[in-house]
Amino acid sequence: MSATLRVLPLGGVGEIGKNMTVVEYDGRMVIVDCGLRFPTAEMMGIDLVLPDFTYVRENIEKLEAIVITHGHEDHLGALPWVIRDLGQDKIPVVYSGQLTIAMARSKLDEHKLRDVPLEVLPIGDTVDAGPFEIERIHLTHSIPDSSGIALKTPLGTILFTGDYKFDQTPVGGAPADMARLAELGKEGVLLLCGDSTNVDRAGVSDSESIVGPHLDRVFARCPARIVVTCFASNIHRVQQVVHAAEKNGRKVALVGRSMRKNVNIGRSLGHIDIPEGMLVTPREIDQFADEKIVIISTGSQGEPLSALRRMAYRDHPQVELKSGDTVVFSATPIPGNERAVNETIDRLYHIGCEVVTARDAPIHASGHGYAEEVKMMINLTRPKYVMPVHGDYKRMLIHSQLAQAVGIPASNIFRTENGLPLEIDAEGARFGKAVQAGMIFVDGVDIGDVSDVALRDRRMLSGDGIFIIVATISEQDGSSVVPPEVLARGVPFLEGNSAFIGELREAVEDSLDGAAEQQITEVDVLQSHLHDDLAKFIYDRLKRRPMVLPVVVEV
Amino acid sequence: MSATLRVLPLGGVGEIGKNMTVVEYDGRMVIVDCGLRFPTAEMMGIDLVLPDFTYVRENIEKLEAIVITHGHEDHLGALPWVIRDLGQDKIPVVYSGQLTIAMARSKLDEHKLRDVPLEVLPIGDTVDAGPFEIERIHLTHSIPDSSGIALKTPLGTILFTGDYKFDQTPVGGAPADMARLAELGKEGVLLLCGDSTNVDRAGVSDSESIVGPHLDRVFARCPARIVVTCFASNIHRVQQVVHAAEKNGRKVALVGRSMRKNVNIGRSLGHIDIPEGMLVTPREIDQFADEKIVIISTGSQGEPLSALRRMAYRDHPQVELKSGDTVVFSATPIPGNERAVNETIDRLYHIGCEVVTARDAPIHASGHGYAEEVKMMINLTRPKYVMPVHGDYKRMLIHSQLAQAVGIPASNIFRTENGLPLEIDAEGARFGKAVQAGMIFVDGVDIGDVSDVALRDRRMLSGDGIFIIVATISEQDGSSVVPPEVLARGVPFLEGNSAFIGELREAVEDSLDGAAEQQITEVDVLQSHLHDDLAKFIYDRLKRRPMVLPVVVEV
Repeated sequence: MSATLRVLPLGGVGEIGKNMTVVEYDGRMVIVDCGLRFPTAEMMGIDLVLPDFTYVRENIEKLEAIVITHGHEDHLGALPWVIRDLGQDKIPVVYSGQLTIAMARSKLDEHKLRDVPLEVLPIGDTVDAGPFEIERIHLTHSIPDSSGIALKTPLGTILFTGDYKFDQTPVGGAPADMARLAELGKEGVLLLCGDSTNVDRAGVSDSESIVGPHLDRVFARCPARIVVTCFASNIHRVQQVVHAAEKNGRKVALVGRSMRKNVNIGRSLGHIDIPEGMLVTPREIDQFADEKIVIISTGSQGEPLSALRRMAYRDHPQVELKSGDTVVFSATPIPGNERAVNETIDRLYHIGCEVVTARDAPIHASGHGYAEEVKMMINLTRPKYVMPVHGDYKRMLIHSQLAQAVGIPASNIFRTENGLPLEIDAEGARFGKAVQAGMIFVDGVDIGDVSDVALRDRRMLSGDGIFIIVATISEQDGSSVVPPEVLARGVPFLEGNSAFIGELREAVEDSLDGAAEQQITEVDVLQSHLHDDLAKFIYDRLKRRPMVLPVVVEV
Repeated sequence: MSATLRVLPLGGVGEIGKNMTVVEYDGRMVIVDCGLRFPTAEMMGIDLVLPDFTYVRENIEKLEAIVITHGHEDHLGALPWVIRDLGQDKIPVVYSGQLTIAMARSKLDEHKLRDVPLEVLPIGDTVDAGPFEIERIHLTHSIPDSSGIALKTPLGTILFTGDYKFDQTPVGGAPADMARLAELGKEGVLLLCGDSTNVDRAGVSDSESIVGPHLDRVFARCPARIVVTCFASNIHRVQQVVHAAEKNGRKVALVGRSMRKNVNIGRSLGHIDIPEGMLVTPREIDQFADEKIVIISTGSQGEPLSALRRMAYRDHPQVELKSGDTVVFSATPIPGNERAVNETIDRLYHIGCEVVTARDAPIHASGHGYAEEVKMMINLTRPKYVMPVHGDYKRMLIHSQLAQAVGIPASNIFRTENGLPLEIDAEGARFGKAVQAGMIFVDGVDIGDVSDVALRDRRMLSGDGIFIIVATISEQDGSSVVPPEVLARGVPFLEGNSAFIGELREAVEDSLDGAAEQQITEVDVLQSHLHDDLAKFIYDRLKRRPMVLPVVVEV
């Protein structure tokens, strides 16, 4: 009983995305969620951003289970990368709901990780993982099969909400299980780790089911083709688009790889019902009259290679949009994607399409509860301690204020940072000693850490390009054996400027002469000498600082 | 009288920014505005984007005058670059208002262009430029000294609104000159080229003067330091911040180079009044109690090197923010800047600052008129033809719909593209033959065109880095003289992987052997052979496509 409970977020606090939390008790460990972030523009060429899970690697023998709240990338997406790194044999079991497990399996398959024990933990069941008893609690969110995770320990219960809203009329499923939350609250929740995404919005979020009738109305006044774009994982949104299409006597085509994949998984598990004969393939679209078809497409965030973006730039192999068609954005841009979304919309206007967004009609509902729902979660579960998660500092701060507003003492609210554990024992709760945390990058097939010099080099290369100078000198006396080679890449406006390359070559010769006078013979020193001379010459002439890479070859 | 009037936008239609329009009549030419855009993330390392002004260069002997509506970068910023390219001696005269001319002079001085005739054209005066009579009409906008430009020709008057709103209670100046607009309307406006920026907003924009009292109220409840950030050119906003500071017994410090520069110019021309003793230097800030100071700072758009961004990252030499300080964003993010602004705000929350944005209080007013104002402009000026400008396709379309709503026939509304001139003669109006248009880039001190291969190279370099392979071979038999050199830059995760570099070196040797077998001796062919072999080897191993640059040196 004297053991300490440690709750250690490795991602998702003080930031949005890559959610991952380690819970330890009595020398054993459970991980809740394993998500990723998408890189920002400054992370040049980086494919994905993962939480730094060094702590997990170093404590892997403690691992009892990984539990996933739901199937979104920011909660599930890092799983294959983490497992590949840790080794499949080190993972005792991954628990989640049926859809989430199916999505996890599909991801792990792509990484040829076929030996990971994935187990469906049905709502209402519990399972033991070392000193933890794990239970999933049904909640509502913008993907089916979302759940909170209760971890019962001898010290008390920790409840992770995952992402949630209290949707009283969700589509294709039950409302959030308020009764079970209340029961947990009565039994006593020691710590609530709650979603902060929409704490800054007053009131209560719209129900998902308001969207359908509005889509229906929008469709009713469309004279030609309709394209609806939404998140591919938002199966219930797709369901509502299908219903609205059916009501308007239109067939439905799914366009975009992830859209087809998610709807297929969703259909096979009964989360979406598409009536017989409603679905046509992208190739068949042209066989139907314009007013008889709805295309459901990826690309709601303006993603460069997405189906909708390609349609907007008249570059999609199956779908050619034209004046009079309507494109419906049943999603809002995630911060940072506004420009890409605006560009897509403007191309659509250029084609002559009508564009309908969530500003024009209530055709989108957020998957995250607003302030009143966050307060309700706390009131239902009556936790002793609160730890805001899934949010930047601003949202974690507002979450804390909401918790205080419903009676949680400020001293029982813990805003932490990635890597900073909360430690709870019979005496109380306090922050423990910070461990390594931060981000690691996926680049191609490899993962590695941010301190790598490569990113700095990429920024330099992208900003100003590179000059490569190859000087071939005699091993005997250091004299130039053949004229130096000068190459440039990513340096603009050189084409009509062969004079500059000539002068640069002369500068190389001058620098080599200078080195000879100073009796510089060692290759490293000579390269450094060349670098300094040429970087200065280039800056003086171009007012830019491209990378300058001298290669000295001794023959 | 039979001459044709040509109105040729070279920038600013179908896009936001880099506004520039050429007007020709009877073989003579006037240019209205000369603006730039800021590059997007994909334009790697590019400093500025200018309109392609090839047409102007090729017709420079026709030029009578350049007229600038107001001092914002998207209307004035390209001027030094364009003049530098065309030659100072080719510019007969640049007309604008006093403040705008002062700002133009400051820009041209930085480029050492001191021989350009810059002339203030006062409101109410007219000046002849070849067949054109030029008049400035006072309008209101988020920078003082904004004006519409009327160009009278024998065929009729063209009115360029520039950027405007109908502010009935502007700060520090008169309302927009509706009387003169109405007079022009009575006399007959042939063509109205109107601002489309806010056509998608219903109703009427807020007056600038509502901002002051709200700033006053926000300041009144701030317990410690206040930092207000706004656009440096928004002199009247700065004026209101100064007034609110004065009311609250606080001194004012200006932080950020452009803030100090613009306020200095504004003060010297009487556009802003800062009472004696109110202004303290950034170095003096620490001499005042926290509740006795307001810092007015650049950085409202989250710009990387701006003063506020540096404060947020605790990296500003003079201003150290702390818990309890308040940062007031008296500006909204321009689309595309949301992420940078959000990051700045979150760092400020992390420090413990209070952050107040235009969502929390009406502390910002847009400088562009909304739909009702755009309709009013058309009703006042009663143009025969309308050409929406300053907007993307969506806004130009909505502008057209507004024009139709106030009675302009659809056939008299011309939505054009950059490079596509509208031609008007006694018979009517129609599009003419398109000329070269688009964007050119400023990179360092040079300007050049987008087709330059350098940008593609930069994208490749930034995405995956570069491998450089130097093979030194014998001129006689093509055999390797010294072992090949292999260098990588911007390729991550190589550090602990010297094995890979070793293997790559072997692959170079293998490739050289293969070339020898195929009796490839010419350097170009050999380089291409090496490139293909090594690119394949690298992709197979890393699943990335870095640039592969083989250099073959014959000795």
